[in-house]
Amino acid sequence: MSLLVIGTLAYDTIETPYARRENVLGGSAVYFSLSASSFGAVRLVGVVGGDFEKVDLERLSQRGVDIRGVERVSDGKSFRWAGRYEADWNTRTTLETQLNVFEHFDPKVPKAYRDSRYVFLANAEPKVQLRALEQCTQPGFVVADTMNLWIEIRRDELLEVLRRVDGIVLNDEEARMLTGERSLIKAAAKVRDLGPRYVILKKGEHGAFLVGENVRYALPAYPVDQVLDPTGAGDCFAGGFMGYLAAADCVEPATMRRAMLYGTVTASFCVQGFGVEALESRRRAQLESRFNELLEFVTL
Amino acid sequence: MSLLVIGTLAYDTIETPYARRENVLGGSAVYFSLSASSFGAVRLVGVVGGDFEKVDLERLSQRGVDIRGVERVSDGKSFRWAGRYEADWNTRTTLETQLNVFEHFDPKVPKAYRDSRYVFLANAEPKVQLRALEQCTQPGFVVADTMNLWIEIRRDELLEVLRRVDGIVLNDEEARMLTGERSLIKAAAKVRDLGPRYVILKKGEHGAFLVGENVRYALPAYPVDQVLDPTGAGDCFAGGFMGYLAAADCVEPATMRRAMLYGTVTASFCVQGFGVEALESRRRAQLESRFNELLEFVTL
Repeated sequence: MSLLVIGTLAYDTIETPYARRENVLGGSAVYFSLSASSFGAVRLVGVVGGDFEKVDLERLSQRGVDIRGVERVSDGKSFRWAGRYEADWNTRTTLETQLNVFEHFDPKVPKAYRDSRYVFLANAEPKVQLRALEQCTQPGFVVADTMNLWIEIRRDELLEVLRRVDGIVLNDEEARMLTGERSLIKAAAKVRDLGPRYVILKKGEHGAFLVGENVRYALPAYPVDQVLDPTGAGDCFAGGFMGYLAAADCVEPATMRRAMLYGTVTASFCVQGFGVEALESRRRAQLESRFNELLEFVTL
Repeated sequence: MSLLVIGTLAYDTIETPYARRENVLGGSAVYFSLSASSFGAVRLVGVVGGDFEKVDLERLSQRGVDIRGVERVSDGKSFRWAGRYEADWNTRTTLETQLNVFEHFDPKVPKAYRDSRYVFLANAEPKVQLRALEQCTQPGFVVADTMNLWIEIRRDELLEVLRRVDGIVLNDEEARMLTGERSLIKAAAKVRDLGPRYVILKKGEHGAFLVGENVRYALPAYPVDQVLDPTGAGDCFAGGFMGYLAAADCVEPATMRRAMLYGTVTASFCVQGFGVEALESRRRAQLESRFNELLEFVTL
């Protein structure tokens, strides 16, 4: 499959009501690619500093992630994020964001990646997303993520991204902020008017839904017994979703619906471990087993 | 069908960000019975004061609700509730609750109702629920509702109710309060350990799920364009659910799942009107149409 992701590779410091861990491997592109790699090879474009451990890149390679697109700035420091979750898991406070080498990141898509048909633009400043996308020579299905910050301070550039992509993933708060609509169904329709043919709304523990051409599909989250760390769940959802589509090389409604299920179960593994731990130890058979379980949970 | 409900008939004063209405027909048993009556006759047990308008009882009769079990206390005042919703619809503040004739309500189940096989004990003090249930001679499938107040101040009596019913409907907050479990899946399992074979967890705009013997089923809410007034949505869900089961006279898993869908679409009509307005104007064909639409929305 030819799936490209551009986003962050990071070291995160995460506090939950139950634990605190410093400098664990994280970043949107890391979560995404470890998730999508269940379905085939993933091409990763990103940047790290001289402090980024070789062993962490090897963790990616071992899972089938192509890291030739990871640029290393030897005299720079990797992207770092620190955040804290409250006991309800829905409230997250960002304690610190150090852009570091990501601040002046000018993404370079290696020649070997440029024919990628499936492209995921993980959360980044819109101009960085556009810069990566314009290097792709034959994008077939492009999906972007974003965040409240860009909706607020880079609205015009973000609107340009929306005009150029096939799909966008947003959480409920972002969808409301972007459109001014309280109703998520109305918000999704307004987002589609801005360009993307497909809108995926993520609602965390309440699941996700897809609205697009000829398709509407709603799913609850997979009911995990215990959440350890929700960091990266949205990127894992996107990774499972895009990974399945890219492997199937199909974006028909029936395939999209199955992709939503794979995204949901992939995210469920993510939240059961700290950082990317549970993603790394997951086997494909477990994914399939949980897929079937969720399917039974939602089938009449 | 032989479906009995015991609960409140009330006059509500409701404030939303868009409107304020005084003394509109409401009450748990009113919302429930207007919903369940789409599927057949409903037997209603409740109490009203001398101030309760005859025309409001006629509104119920016209929809197929048997009101012979509604006691009138001529020198008393009907139950009254006032509440306000914030713009997110999820935050509700109770401004006033006047129990009035409901305070010393001793439910009397008419002889003609006592053979009811399907029984819904709407939210009331647990001892009132038990008093009604013990008059039923052959209850086959009994479901109860409750609220945070009884979990706090009438825990022992509520536990007695739980031991005697087949199913319980709870919202997420109540389930967590009752069990001390944050995870709704774990909470549902703990509630089942307290007695009910079936637990229905209502999550408002995020849908509902059912956990019981041989069945687990999750549904999103039907995506309405606009919410006017969420009052009574939970009772309408229960009314659609129980009404369908009673009409089918079956509680097999496949029937339960369909009943969950009917509960969901019934609640969706409720929130689109003020008070019971939208329930009254709804036609069975609209219910079926929305049933099919929701089914498509959740089917792989």
